[in-house]
Amino acid sequence: MGVMRNPDVNDAMCPSRLVLEHVTSRWGVLVLAALLERSYRFSELRRAIGGVSEKMLAQTLQTLERDGFVHRDAKPVIPPRVDYSLTALGREAGEQVWALARWTEARMTDVLTARERYDEVRASG
Amino acid sequence: MGVMRNPDVNDAMCPSRLVLEHVTSRWGVLVLAALLERSYRFSELRRAIGGVSEKMLAQTLQTLERDGFVHRDAKPVIPPRVDYSLTALGREAGEQVWALARWTEARMTDVLTARERYDEVRASG
Repeated sequence: MGVMRNPDVNDAMCPSRLVLEHVTSRWGVLVLAALLERSYRFSELRRAIGGVSEKMLAQTLQTLERDGFVHRDAKPVIPPRVDYSLTALGREAGEQVWALARWTEARMTDVLTARERYDEVRASG
Repeated sequence: MGVMRNPDVNDAMCPSRLVLEHVTSRWGVLVLAALLERSYRFSELRRAIGGVSEKMLAQTLQTLERDGFVHRDAKPVIPPRVDYSLTALGREAGEQVWALARWTEARMTDVLTARERYDEVRASG
């Protein structure tokens, strides 16, 4: 039975640490955020997420599917067609990482300003 | 000037992609979530976050400081004392990753159940 007492991501041995790493992985974040907006076919998703390799995208989708976040729907048609979407659990994760992605984009000016200040202090020190 | 037009984390060349990776990095998530609760000294933070090496924690804190998320306060005392806390910008990030960490812990039973189902289907197929 998959019941856990007191999961703790700060415990390196706790399985929740790895699940958090799946959700927040470089490609996991972008896949969950994209799938929150709509379902995608594999090739579409690969085009939507700049820089992801076929192998990394396949691995990321498989990991997220196994964790119960992503639903893989292989349609019995010719040519084969596979759609990826979020499960109810995946939508909960997707909403959070989608918000984090949009927040990051919205705060880039603040981040770049902070970096200039940091680098100036180091250069003059 | 650090002003950006239309940052897009799905663009592999956009600086926002890297900032999102800092916020969601393995140790970045846990550092931001810990610092949301209170300020920490380096050695305390290292104890609070299981498995982090001194080197990785120092690198993570420096990256988050440069991005404007973490404030480093070196007290002029003997022995030296350095406190780390979140800036206003860092609190915004911290609130989101804190919520994501708590959500992950709360959903571990669902994740483990999903994995059992996934592995069963593969084993019987």
